[in-house]
Amino acid sequence: MFKEIISSQSLEITAKPTSGRIPLGFKGAGIFCGIKKRRKDLALILSERPATAAGVFTTNVVQAAPVLICKEHLSERDTFRALIINSGNANACTGEQGYKDAFEMSSLIASELGLENNEIFVSSTGVIGETLPMDKISEGIKIIASEIFSTEKQEEEKMQEAAEAIMTTDTFSKTVSSTFLINGKEVTIYGMAKGSGMIHPNMATMLGFILTDATIEKKLLQSMLKNATNKTFNRIIVDGDTSTNDMVLALANGASSAEIIAETHEHYIFENELFALLKKLSLDIVRDGEGATKLIEITVDGAGSIEDAEKIGRTIALSPLVKTAIHGEDANWGRIIAAAGYSGIKFDPAQFEIFINGIKILGSNYSVELSIEESNKTLEPHYIYLTIKIGNGNYSATCWTCDFSEEYVKINGSYRS
Amino acid sequence: MFKEIISSQSLEITAKPTSGRIPLGFKGAGIFCGIKKRRKDLALILSERPATAAGVFTTNVVQAAPVLICKEHLSERDTFRALIINSGNANACTGEQGYKDAFEMSSLIASELGLENNEIFVSSTGVIGETLPMDKISEGIKIIASEIFSTEKQEEEKMQEAAEAIMTTDTFSKTVSSTFLINGKEVTIYGMAKGSGMIHPNMATMLGFILTDATIEKKLLQSMLKNATNKTFNRIIVDGDTSTNDMVLALANGASSAEIIAETHEHYIFENELFALLKKLSLDIVRDGEGATKLIEITVDGAGSIEDAEKIGRTIALSPLVKTAIHGEDANWGRIIAAAGYSGIKFDPAQFEIFINGIKILGSNYSVELSIEESNKTLEPHYIYLTIKIGNGNYSATCWTCDFSEEYVKINGSYRS
Repeated sequence: MFKEIISSQSLEITAKPTSGRIPLGFKGAGIFCGIKKRRKDLALILSERPATAAGVFTTNVVQAAPVLICKEHLSERDTFRALIINSGNANACTGEQGYKDAFEMSSLIASELGLENNEIFVSSTGVIGETLPMDKISEGIKIIASEIFSTEKQEEEKMQEAAEAIMTTDTFSKTVSSTFLINGKEVTIYGMAKGSGMIHPNMATMLGFILTDATIEKKLLQSMLKNATNKTFNRIIVDGDTSTNDMVLALANGASSAEIIAETHEHYIFENELFALLKKLSLDIVRDGEGATKLIEITVDGAGSIEDAEKIGRTIALSPLVKTAIHGEDANWGRIIAAAGYSGIKFDPAQFEIFINGIKILGSNYSVELSIEESNKTLEPHYIYLTIKIGNGNYSATCWTCDFSEEYVKINGSYRS
Repeated sequence: MFKEIISSQSLEITAKPTSGRIPLGFKGAGIFCGIKKRRKDLALILSERPATAAGVFTTNVVQAAPVLICKEHLSERDTFRALIINSGNANACTGEQGYKDAFEMSSLIASELGLENNEIFVSSTGVIGETLPMDKISEGIKIIASEIFSTEKQEEEKMQEAAEAIMTTDTFSKTVSSTFLINGKEVTIYGMAKGSGMIHPNMATMLGFILTDATIEKKLLQSMLKNATNKTFNRIIVDGDTSTNDMVLALANGASSAEIIAETHEHYIFENELFALLKKLSLDIVRDGEGATKLIEITVDGAGSIEDAEKIGRTIALSPLVKTAIHGEDANWGRIIAAAGYSGIKFDPAQFEIFINGIKILGSNYSVELSIEESNKTLEPHYIYLTIKIGNGNYSATCWTCDFSEEYVKINGSYRS
């Protein structure tokens, strides 16, 4: 039996990100090149040595040009050197021209840095349906290729600028790093991310870039990234909309000389650190939802399989009725049990139990021991731990969402016009 | 090739219901018995002669006691006589006691009317998780059993009172009737409904009761009701939440002496009338969504199957991002194509076309011929016909939803507290 172990304390993260330590052998830069009106819109991340890579991409049928390019490059070779990312324009639904532009972005930066075209990953986020302003981007690429070697700023500061350049409607940049020992050698993992489709779906892409100085074989890196993404980025549920551009990329350049070998104790340590890091980035994305006033962790326990538990959790997390009730601090358990009931997973409703922040608001056989007022009080905190117990088995899964406020509708209804 | 033919004009229905003609041999009554604070809360519908019946019930795993009782009665016999319905309390998540109470409701009215217990259908709608006030209900049942034979009011008026007694948060009662000729004999179908889970999910049940004086064999009535429900009540998508109490029941008592025989021309006529009637009730439910300012008809054309078309339409109809954009009159086609893209149905995005109220806002190969301002203008009417064309085949499906306003969140966040 496998149970996910997720510390509840970890929800209580600080609002400001920790930029933290950068893994050995990586450089970053972020500049303004004119795609957006004012703010930074072009980022470059470079590994000084060849790095293995892994990628997890959107499952949307409509895939933006940079997603296609990244998948091709990932399948063509084993080592990579750089990521070029623009914000302000998603290069999605742009047809043939979009594909050419994404290819040109990687070619331009490759030629500036003296690399092969397919050693580069390309990523875009921003408005859908408009072609990239390639004149501005090619000018920007020349500048950023020199900026990345500049010694006027600390490397940490430059990497932080890269993290800012991938933002769209995010209100704060999301970065995190973790340093730990592998066989007595220091290993660092660093991650940056930008927000998902909660607010401005035209600028809704969820991007994550993970860098480490460990040595990790490509297949192992792919399996670890996929596992961790499935339990973190893929478990944050804001409005259920999946973007055309979502991607999480990881680079491992081995500069620390610590090696992660599959099925060893070190593999387990590294995977746990990676999971914690992606979880931190995921929760930062949920917390940055405009209009969100509460962060909700939903754990479904007692399911027949992890998939069942996830499906029930996801259905509850997507229910506008549950999300508005939590926003209004109304511990309306009828909405929760009804949402679970249409998840498609069969269970005995008489065994259903609901806990909010550790307090049982519904027991089995529909027993309610708290008054409505007492139940509602459990929803006062900003961090809501909602635990559902069903009687089907021993599996559980956790997902995260935020509440649904009037602000969300206001912002989304008047975004472009 | 089967294509659904749905007249677009039919969206433009009047706000006030037409109570219309009651089929021969049916009586109704609606009274106040004290479950709610003030308004009518108990309804009775009686057929003077045995009627065949059909039912379509919620697919939620959590099924309220009256749903279980109705299913049992429906399977136990071929003819039925009455429906007893209360509002204000759903008798859902009430365990053993709830089942006993629902059974008692049918027994009480059966004994008042001199009928068998299983000739009665029982239906409840209202708050989840509280047991029925059986003292008030048994008093009410005595009163309504005499009220239904009272001649002080017109039959039409009494049936209208029944329609009012099944309302919860509905702002108007929803009734419709249609009279037409079958083999030279007048046949009437009458329907009443109450709203679905768009606003107050504790009072969110969608109920529909259909009465006709045609003679229809039980199996044929079931198949017609199921087909019509699948294309009407099951295609209205407000927030995706499916209640524990949803049901649509039909009674056919043969009082008109016109018989509908399977696979005849008359069968086709009757089925078409039934579909139109259920569609009218469905649209009334969508239009009654508090906070809703626009009624949206989504037709997906060019799909490989009706199921595929429906799945894409349903995903678009459920996307908060699409619904808030339409609310804000922002013809944000990126949101529509992205929602279609995560429906799970594969298609070639370059062949995707979008029409709003007949105007093409997105052509194939992502061609956009209108300015943003011109596109947005297409969303000004209250009735939005959104047509999506994909290039997979010749099948289409239509569903209905409403826009998503700040009001929705405001009402749902402060419902109980």
